[in-house]
Amino acid sequence: MQDLPELTKCALRRIAKSVVIVATRWEAKRYAMAATAVVGLSLDPPSLLLCVNKTASLTTPLSGGARFAVNLLGRDHLALPISCSAPYQGEERFERGCWGEWGEVPILEDAQAIFVCAPELLTPYGTHNVIIGRVDAVRLCGELDPLIYVDQGYYGTAILESNFAE
Amino acid sequence: MQDLPELTKCALRRIAKSVVIVATRWEAKRYAMAATAVVGLSLDPPSLLLCVNKTASLTTPLSGGARFAVNLLGRDHLALPISCSAPYQGEERFERGCWGEWGEVPILEDAQAIFVCAPELLTPYGTHNVIIGRVDAVRLCGELDPLIYVDQGYYGTAILESNFAE
Repeated sequence: MQDLPELTKCALRRIAKSVVIVATRWEAKRYAMAATAVVGLSLDPPSLLLCVNKTASLTTPLSGGARFAVNLLGRDHLALPISCSAPYQGEERFERGCWGEWGEVPILEDAQAIFVCAPELLTPYGTHNVIIGRVDAVRLCGELDPLIYVDQGYYGTAILESNFAE
Repeated sequence: MQDLPELTKCALRRIAKSVVIVATRWEAKRYAMAATAVVGLSLDPPSLLLCVNKTASLTTPLSGGARFAVNLLGRDHLALPISCSAPYQGEERFERGCWGEWGEVPILEDAQAIFVCAPELLTPYGTHNVIIGRVDAVRLCGELDPLIYVDQGYYGTAILESNFAE
């Protein structure tokens, strides 16, 4: 029988998630990190929420108030989550992808959506920080074609035969 | 040109999400609500996070400390998000689906994963509350086949030809 943390890990992996690259600049250095723990929070004010491991390189910039971009990946960006994760570090993480800037904030020019945010509230909990980002600027790009991560694998979407959505 | 809240709404819709039914019991009544703003938070302690509109019927129970279940839906559950949303209310929301109980907490017996949680920290922000749930119990069921909601439509997953996942 598995213990509760191990079983929780297996169950959390079953939650399907979009993949994003969170990017920022801090003391003249660029930082980027692949992430999946991102959700929309409110439209009043426009805001989103992300959960970041306290050991991540972005923790210091975000704790320090650095504005950041959440770059939402499409299926064409399949190589980016790997290049924006360990063992790659610092500028190595920007070697792939069509990177530009919004003000000083690194953005992925062809992301499905870009949210430029200011960190507004940081709540530590266990191994992670919960960061609420207030959205300053948004850009959309291309046809919808999300890259999805679930149970340690990457997927695209498949249309369902019967779809109750409006 | 769209204003920032409208543009943020369009961009947030592009984030692909699993669909869950959050369910609880409070003062002898059952409550259920379809939701997509759920993410894993930490394994130490085992925890997840959800964002709930302050106007939702579950706000009172969760603010009051009611234990709740996050029931993760699969493709076969396509009808449930509709039946667990307005205009349906109260017990009407339990008319579809294979509902059981874990202690007093309503659970969907054939959910892809069930997380039974105690609300541990509630942070109001804008129109929503951010609720951290400490996971007490977990159950997994069936082959992985997630129901995905993105841009106001429901989807399944499609395997990618080249997959960098381990």
